[in-house]
Amino acid sequence: MIQKLLIANRGEIAVRIIRACREMGIETVAVYSKADKDALHTQLADEAICIGETKASESYLNMESIISATIATGADAIHPGFGFLSENSKFARLCEQCNIIFIGPKSDVMYNLGNKSVARKTMIEANVPVIPGSEEQIYDSKTGKKIADQVGYPVIIKAALGGGGKGMRVAYGPEEFEQAFNAAKKESEAAFDDGTMYIEHFVENPRHIEFQILADKFGNVIHLGERDCSIQRNHQKMIEESPSVILSDELRKKMGNTAVRAAKAAKYENAGTIEFLLDKDKFYFMEMNTRIQVEHPVTETVTGIDLIKEQIKIADGQPLSYKQKDIKINGHAIECRINAENPLLNFRPSPGVITDLYLPGGNGVRIDSAVYNGYEVTPYYDSMLAKLIVHGENREEAIKKMISALGEVIVEGIDTNVDYLYGILNDSVFQSGHFDVNFIENFNKNIENIA
Amino acid sequence: MIQKLLIANRGEIAVRIIRACREMGIETVAVYSKADKDALHTQLADEAICIGETKASESYLNMESIISATIATGADAIHPGFGFLSENSKFARLCEQCNIIFIGPKSDVMYNLGNKSVARKTMIEANVPVIPGSEEQIYDSKTGKKIADQVGYPVIIKAALGGGGKGMRVAYGPEEFEQAFNAAKKESEAAFDDGTMYIEHFVENPRHIEFQILADKFGNVIHLGERDCSIQRNHQKMIEESPSVILSDELRKKMGNTAVRAAKAAKYENAGTIEFLLDKDKFYFMEMNTRIQVEHPVTETVTGIDLIKEQIKIADGQPLSYKQKDIKINGHAIECRINAENPLLNFRPSPGVITDLYLPGGNGVRIDSAVYNGYEVTPYYDSMLAKLIVHGENREEAIKKMISALGEVIVEGIDTNVDYLYGILNDSVFQSGHFDVNFIENFNKNIENIA
Repeated sequence: MIQKLLIANRGEIAVRIIRACREMGIETVAVYSKADKDALHTQLADEAICIGETKASESYLNMESIISATIATGADAIHPGFGFLSENSKFARLCEQCNIIFIGPKSDVMYNLGNKSVARKTMIEANVPVIPGSEEQIYDSKTGKKIADQVGYPVIIKAALGGGGKGMRVAYGPEEFEQAFNAAKKESEAAFDDGTMYIEHFVENPRHIEFQILADKFGNVIHLGERDCSIQRNHQKMIEESPSVILSDELRKKMGNTAVRAAKAAKYENAGTIEFLLDKDKFYFMEMNTRIQVEHPVTETVTGIDLIKEQIKIADGQPLSYKQKDIKINGHAIECRINAENPLLNFRPSPGVITDLYLPGGNGVRIDSAVYNGYEVTPYYDSMLAKLIVHGENREEAIKKMISALGEVIVEGIDTNVDYLYGILNDSVFQSGHFDVNFIENFNKNIENIA
Repeated sequence: MIQKLLIANRGEIAVRIIRACREMGIETVAVYSKADKDALHTQLADEAICIGETKASESYLNMESIISATIATGADAIHPGFGFLSENSKFARLCEQCNIIFIGPKSDVMYNLGNKSVARKTMIEANVPVIPGSEEQIYDSKTGKKIADQVGYPVIIKAALGGGGKGMRVAYGPEEFEQAFNAAKKESEAAFDDGTMYIEHFVENPRHIEFQILADKFGNVIHLGERDCSIQRNHQKMIEESPSVILSDELRKKMGNTAVRAAKAAKYENAGTIEFLLDKDKFYFMEMNTRIQVEHPVTETVTGIDLIKEQIKIADGQPLSYKQKDIKINGHAIECRINAENPLLNFRPSPGVITDLYLPGGNGVRIDSAVYNGYEVTPYYDSMLAKLIVHGENREEAIKKMISALGEVIVEGIDTNVDYLYGILNDSVFQSGHFDVNFIENFNKNIENIA
């Protein structure tokens, strides 16, 4: 059994993992950059080790430092969280080479799924529906443009190693292509140190529906139902819920089975997410995220399953604790991401010291956060302050609970999106459940019209 | 349907009720004493009205002020919470006379159950086992002593209107009787403005097992399983859990059925609790609490049922939302009461300003509290700061989660029992599950021996 685990991450997900480990009797090692000396994850872990400068490339993205810290502290395993090195197959391979248990899939599986053109082929072979798009990896805009013409406009240009909306651009016609391609490529190079791109037909008004997967080393694969993540801004998710109001039981079953098939085809191990675009009753495989997701708590809330503990058990070689028939969806969960940003200034990040903080509690309210009163939000990393997750008997109750909880939040000293989220939760279109991934764009237009 | 509800209470239970109302679309009115001008319940309610001086007898116990506030604000209903007027049948009757919906049982039912000798007769008639004790109300120590001789020592002397350990004393022999009786009576008069006493045989090493009941106006009564509240100090509960590790399924069923029978015999309506003393496999009715309990969240956690919402629906004339067969116990819940007190100084209350506060969150952690950073804990009311409730797959996981969560709590500026609770959770006797209501006394002796 894993005795000591290093968390190669920061913020709330690092805290989330530390808590799971404590409950499992596993010792924890936090790593931190110079800016995170007083961060909560640094304080809560059994040990904490500084791995470098504030800049992520010199700390949380520095593979050598992290491997050294693991060896120096005698940790058996690394949990990468999300973001940073979590989907970097080189890092996963480095762990394998150093005999460190990486909490995630095997490096070659990660590589194949992380590379969108390879993943596409795997899915086509497994009879998983995919969006028309490029079969080959693309490195320059000229080649890209030819493929875009074949696929048909609008097209979306994506970084092969992308995620979280980074390295993505849409071109609605050939005249927009070159600029969009170059912008996406530049962003990809900055974020992932890789300029490999990929092009597919752009489905204009889909819903983003993703299925949570658990797969052990013995070939057992189950899904834990879906998350509807259609409320997103520039491909950055903002509000997630489970179950999705739009899925019939029949469609849920069909998509769930497809997700399991996709994971099996990829020889996947550990927790993962199959992201689909849903266009009415047609759905397309978008990508598989080979890590825990930010929004995993909504699945935990409706299934009662602790995904981080399952991840660790799977990596430790244990078989799945559940069979598909054990999975029951209880009630409805919604998550809001509370960010340090100003929605009125195009969501500009708002670093600074939190001078007063009150986060709500009570029945069916969960807070995953790494901030505290007096905490300094630095401009160097992600702007997420907290995830507020509610559990209701049904969607209506969950919405009311979220409105009530958001209404209680106090964050002084910096700007946040709390009022903006409150507006969405009170919006009649959101409440109706009839929306797609363009919800935010339309919502913002309505606000402007009113103003 | 109830449109507007006044909460005749303060602290976390007032906040708990306000949240439930908000989720139900019911307007809320808070009442507050002068000392609670900045309290959280005062801030969170839709309206807040000052009902008098700091002293509870001039505010939270002042029936006329509260009724006036209800009429002045146009509220339809009063939720009394726990403590204060929650089990005062005069107050319930006053509400009835003023056509205000009282969230609780009818005043005559409350009177009959609140008066322990009347309740006893009802239970004996309904074939609910009771402890040998006085059939009559007792007002003086001389009469009391005669009855104690009949019942057999040790005896416990209890206030007829008592609760929460107030107005209770044990006499182990005749020589201790008079002093114990007079002390209990004095305490009862101070706390409940009533000196009616009651005597019963004292079961020395029982467990405190209570069953949560829900009963509607149509005669439907169900139970929501038990809570084990054996970890108590001077009859003040400190840690509560559900389910109890000590009950076999057979005994649980038998006690649950008895609890339902008891509630039916009393013609009970709304949420209530049947408290039993369990002596190995023999159990005795102790009392029925005719209100929501402090420890109700552990039942909410394992059943998924919102007890405050059910209380309001029942008072509103709606039938129960659940049948007995719908009630499933999921996993294990534990609650710790975090108090402003110093365990090293005989749990002396520790009022003052909270200069730094951090309460944990995460998966399966619930906080019910009314404190915030900078909050001033006054010496005038109950010393409870927060209830920390955890949910695990089983007792072992729940204990680990509680240890982890307690370890994160930071309360600066005042003393708390957090470290003391942490010690109990780590105690091998507590962890074994083999303990009785004398656990704390033995635990304290062990600490002294070590010191």
